[in-house]
Amino acid sequence: MNAKRSEAATGEAGSVGEIMQAIGARARAAADVLANATSEAKNAALLAAAAHLRASIETILAANAADVAAMQAAGSTAAMVDRTRLDADRIEGIAAGLEAIAALDDPVGEVIAAWSRPNGLAIERVRTPLGVIGVIFESRPNVTADAGALCLKAGNAVVLRGGSDAHRSSAAIHACLTAGLEEAGLSPDAVQLVPTTDRAAVGAMLTGLEGNIDVIVPRGGKSLVARVQAEARVPVFAHLEGVCHVYVHAPADLEMARTIAVNAKMRRTGICGAAETLLVDEALAATHLAPLVMALQDAGCTVRGDAAVQAAAAGVEPASEADWPAEYLDAIIAVKVVDGLEAAMDHIARYGSHHTEAIITEDEAAANRFLAEVDSAIVMHNASTQFADGGEFGMGAEIGIATGKFHARGPVGVEQLTSFKYRVHGSGQTRP
Amino acid sequence: MNAKRSEAATGEAGSVGEIMQAIGARARAAADVLANATSEAKNAALLAAAAHLRASIETILAANAADVAAMQAAGSTAAMVDRTRLDADRIEGIAAGLEAIAALDDPVGEVIAAWSRPNGLAIERVRTPLGVIGVIFESRPNVTADAGALCLKAGNAVVLRGGSDAHRSSAAIHACLTAGLEEAGLSPDAVQLVPTTDRAAVGAMLTGLEGNIDVIVPRGGKSLVARVQAEARVPVFAHLEGVCHVYVHAPADLEMARTIAVNAKMRRTGICGAAETLLVDEALAATHLAPLVMALQDAGCTVRGDAAVQAAAAGVEPASEADWPAEYLDAIIAVKVVDGLEAAMDHIARYGSHHTEAIITEDEAAANRFLAEVDSAIVMHNASTQFADGGEFGMGAEIGIATGKFHARGPVGVEQLTSFKYRVHGSGQTRP
Repeated sequence: MNAKRSEAATGEAGSVGEIMQAIGARARAAADVLANATSEAKNAALLAAAAHLRASIETILAANAADVAAMQAAGSTAAMVDRTRLDADRIEGIAAGLEAIAALDDPVGEVIAAWSRPNGLAIERVRTPLGVIGVIFESRPNVTADAGALCLKAGNAVVLRGGSDAHRSSAAIHACLTAGLEEAGLSPDAVQLVPTTDRAAVGAMLTGLEGNIDVIVPRGGKSLVARVQAEARVPVFAHLEGVCHVYVHAPADLEMARTIAVNAKMRRTGICGAAETLLVDEALAATHLAPLVMALQDAGCTVRGDAAVQAAAAGVEPASEADWPAEYLDAIIAVKVVDGLEAAMDHIARYGSHHTEAIITEDEAAANRFLAEVDSAIVMHNASTQFADGGEFGMGAEIGIATGKFHARGPVGVEQLTSFKYRVHGSGQTRP
Repeated sequence: MNAKRSEAATGEAGSVGEIMQAIGARARAAADVLANATSEAKNAALLAAAAHLRASIETILAANAADVAAMQAAGSTAAMVDRTRLDADRIEGIAAGLEAIAALDDPVGEVIAAWSRPNGLAIERVRTPLGVIGVIFESRPNVTADAGALCLKAGNAVVLRGGSDAHRSSAAIHACLTAGLEEAGLSPDAVQLVPTTDRAAVGAMLTGLEGNIDVIVPRGGKSLVARVQAEARVPVFAHLEGVCHVYVHAPADLEMARTIAVNAKMRRTGICGAAETLLVDEALAATHLAPLVMALQDAGCTVRGDAAVQAAAAGVEPASEADWPAEYLDAIIAVKVVDGLEAAMDHIARYGSHHTEAIITEDEAAANRFLAEVDSAIVMHNASTQFADGGEFGMGAEIGIATGKFHARGPVGVEQLTSFKYRVHGSGQTRP
């Protein structure tokens, strides 16, 4: 947190409450129109926004340089500055992302199910937009474009509230989106960026802007997500943490187990689908434990283990109770020997975060039980937990991953940003 | 409201808060086990409960007689007493309802979608239970069985809180469900009835029993639903009201319009899918308005109309602004002449409740626009709004109708009481 967050950078007159109320009302009005916008208009807006981004590289980089300079002057860490910093390649990536979202199928109007009744009524369940989505994010300015575009594609209006550190960069990107909407004949109110960095704006969004925000999506660290989950008075699509497990169950192919364990932990340690705990079946302790631990260590990972793990390989740090629920997001893994499938599932139920868990085994029956009984958004057999991602699932793009059980669970792509309604086609039927 | 509601009728020691906390903890534990119960066990419990209901008719009727006597002594209205009163036929109907739910397909484990990725990963989206459902109902004791059974079928634990007026009847029915669960080897904690009539129990449920209730379903009048929607800190599946519209658009077959309008309004006036407003296209005023109004009047309906409607037929009461958003739930209808499709949709957007609306027309293009653009859970063409019902939709049974856009919209049947997860089948894939 830094003191700048309470500093207003508003281009509008009025109190924060008044500004936010007006934003909410405009978003609802835009959503009502956008719900019936054509795919062509929405895609045209996305493609025009991408063109504006490419044409505005200098402007965006100048805004970004001002953000970065202010962060450095305020003593922000190098990691924080890096999350905010843009370059020409990153801006090209943002533009390409908009084009990729334009290329996705439009979910709105899709018939999800259709059936007929004995009386001749034909019933269809059809996707519709959700309404207005509030996105609260921190320092990554690309979220302005990524989240704005996904919401727009699904026919929703969006209210974006970015972190104060990157507000100049976000505003420059947002101007490109607005220009794209206007060129396509759509209201710029469909994608609004909160113009104040006053933190009271977040509070207003969490209460739903008087019924004008239907769902909140937080994009950022655990403290942001925790605040949103605790305070939101509207539904939230989020995950608080990803304490993902890889369980190696006998019989398991050692080479497959080793490759998956190293990939699940070390491919990228900072993403929510990175493995944080490796559970090894006691039946495999003699054959698989030491090679698994050493492969992780060789890949640069610190291993913390229980007594059996410490005995199996050199250099294992003792794990404490605090390690089992830990989300390291770093090159550290907790390793434990468990007495079979039940014990592994009990451990996951006790310490996991209902995000993503994988079992590595040649035993199909054990795999099927694991997939059926582990209560996580994503359960995998013989695959790396790092596949927990909307793009990897074939959804094209995602706004995040949800661990709740309502409406959206797992990767939240354009389909998950829709609702549905029933269309009933009759020929004069009345109910007896 | 009556004074009895604050009177405790608890069979457990401890404060209401302690009782409710214990109920929540037991429900969560039961839900965790029930999520993996077989269809056979769940169905066996339902069938055994039905048998217990039939065997317990005398006991249930005695409990019900005590409830009815207490209500009459307290001066309850005849309508309230009738909602609580049971007879042998009603109990047989409740038992048959349990058997019908047992006969439904088990939604848990159903593969909703399945696809493969270029890397060979096979991804399935599979239905899972939601968790623990809280049902808050008023005087109809049959809800104990109907709602309990639907939740159980979908693999959820349920916490039932019935109105104090019917608490003896509900307890007698609940005992049959508990006996059925035990005979099937399932925990009786899967279906718990709150044993206290203290209204603080409702407040505790609305806060989610410390994370142990996942969704609330209110079953009762508008004041109950409004309180639940305002105070619940967990998702709610509900509709506040059903201000349903029938719009007759030119060209429309007069006989079809007349039959549907009378059925939509008068088949049963007290259900949420009953039409409350009839909109007639100006282009049809000369030909259709008078016959439609007179048909409704002939069926015993009071018609309140704007000036054009008053001019078209005798005996039309003048409609005031208060009539357009009114949910009469009675033999009264508001009728208005509108200047075409746009005006009809504007009226519905302004005064409707997003429940169910029908267009009667031979103009397919107009019908398609109405079905696409009207933002209601159910939109119909040439059919009566009284079909807004899970049974009529072929869902087998419903716990209610939802007008929210999250998770469940329209009739809430067993499928809507489920969540889903992703099962990923690999053969050693790692993410590049």
